Amino acid sequence: MSRFPPISGTGMIIDGKALASEMEAETIARVEKLAAIGRRPGLATIIVGENPASAMYVRIKHSACDRVGIRSQTVRLPEEARIEVILETIKGLNEKDDVNGILLQLPLPRGRDPAPAMAAIDPAKDVDGFHPLNMGTLLAGAERLVPCTPKGIIWALERLGVDLEGKEAVIVGHSNVVGKPLAAMMLNRNATVTVCHVFTKDLAAHTRKAEVLVVAAGVPGLIRGDMVRTGAYVFDVGINRVGDRTVGDVEFDEVLVVAAAVTPVPGGVGPLTVSMLMSQTATAAEMQMSSEER
Amino acid sequence: MSRFPPISGTGMIIDGKALASEMEAETIARVEKLAAIGRRPGLATIIVGENPASAMYVRIKHSACDRVGIRSQTVRLPEEARIEVILETIKGLNEKDDVNGILLQLPLPRGRDPAPAMAAIDPAKDVDGFHPLNMGTLLAGAERLVPCTPKGIIWALERLGVDLEGKEAVIVGHSNVVGKPLAAMMLNRNATVTVCHVFTKDLAAHTRKAEVLVVAAGVPGLIRGDMVRTGAYVFDVGINRVGDRTVGDVEFDEVLVVAAAVTPVPGGVGPLTVSMLMSQTATAAEMQMSSEER
Repeated sequence: MSRFPPISGTGMIIDGKALASEMEAETIARVEKLAAIGRRPGLATIIVGENPASAMYVRIKHSACDRVGIRSQTVRLPEEARIEVILETIKGLNEKDDVNGILLQLPLPRGRDPAPAMAAIDPAKDVDGFHPLNMGTLLAGAERLVPCTPKGIIWALERLGVDLEGKEAVIVGHSNVVGKPLAAMMLNRNATVTVCHVFTKDLAAHTRKAEVLVVAAGVPGLIRGDMVRTGAYVFDVGINRVGDRTVGDVEFDEVLVVAAAVTPVPGGVGPLTVSMLMSQTATAAEMQMSSEER
Repeated sequence: MSRFPPISGTGMIIDGKALASEMEAETIARVEKLAAIGRRPGLATIIVGENPASAMYVRIKHSACDRVGIRSQTVRLPEEARIEVILETIKGLNEKDDVNGILLQLPLPRGRDPAPAMAAIDPAKDVDGFHPLNMGTLLAGAERLVPCTPKGIIWALERLGVDLEGKEAVIVGHSNVVGKPLAAMMLNRNATVTVCHVFTKDLAAHTRKAEVLVVAAGVPGLIRGDMVRTGAYVFDVGINRVGDRTVGDVEFDEVLVVAAAVTPVPGGVGPLTVSMLMSQTATAAEMQMSSEER
């Protein structure tokens, strides 16, 4: 964990890459245990069309597969593929024994609703955790396969020794991918949770109270230094292109001197998310094996 | 809507019975439309053992069925019924065409985990909204069959003309039945939502900010007048026996003079919940019909 000269906080930069490597080391051990009994996990990604950002994310995920020893395959569908074709592709992968995890790369091209596609993925292979059955199980407090970004943040907080019970946690952004599932996960750990978003009247009044602050708004520089409580743990989920730079939603330099610790962008939440996807693919393979044994 | 002499709020007592009657009038119209084409909705309740409170709740629900013209039936299982027997009973009701809604009265007797039983109910007949598929669909923002108490509160807020978008909403209690699903429903309507509970360090600091305050803690008199913001809408979900009286979680007389409006206990959230169960039974019957037509 690298450190920065502290002023009022302790100014620690949360090294997402280093934490992700620790997580991957655990995953490698689990993958090799599975491989030793002929059950090396496999991840299949469906990518529809030619979105360059999607292509990049898929490359990043599959390169993580290579690092941890998970087999990966990509199913490419043309830009104009109808929803029926996407659903058929998913059904085919649901039935393949050597595919333990299925990833539908979002967004789908215009006019194709992702909801029925996500609901078509076998919940036991839903390594992204977006299937409504997995989301509902999460909301009810039993976490199995859950969205990777929130779970990566929860994992990092545990690693950093932050016990969420009784903590004031504030989430900025109420998306289905980050904000809402993270709120459920934090409530399951007995944090006091506030979810803010674009309709919130006084954002700073909330963020200033946060002992744990997670920002997933997609607005560059939204969170300034004076909006952060001294000693807070700050996770920046934003990935924004500003000119030729990639920046988060947090004004990093300002917040670093106030907070106990902050994730940078890039190199913070992103690597944690990718490594959590690897971990969940291993989890899916383990769960599928134990359900066969029953 | 009855009114009370206002001091600093407007001191309105939210008449849950009157609102419930309005909702039931709507439900009666829907039920009669279904009955006219030979599809009068039916609700089946499974009750395990002899819990007197459960017996009372089932009586209240079935008397509501009588009022709105929904057929009701009760399946009584003995106290010692094993989980397998409960699951078989549910499967039988799932297959019956004249049962549109299935209610498993909770709590189950000791040693029987309700989770697999709730997950065994056909999601299309899950009028209590506790099936993980319905909970997950709710969390993802598409509300179909959802828990009745939160939905009753949302319905009442709409009736009272309170638009949740941008409102500061605070929920006290993070149960699967009320707090967590209500938080999801309020986020779906773009409120800023804070969920507090027994682990919250400074409850009053949160409740004093609430424009909409929902209390479901099961602690008599938890919310005092000085913990409520002037002009707040306050919903008291608590049902506590104190001596021979039934009281809520809100110190009613103190809060009434501060708030814009408060639900009493009894006669507030309770009747709304029961009427919402009737409404959802009609919804289930309507959805089942339209899915047959497809």
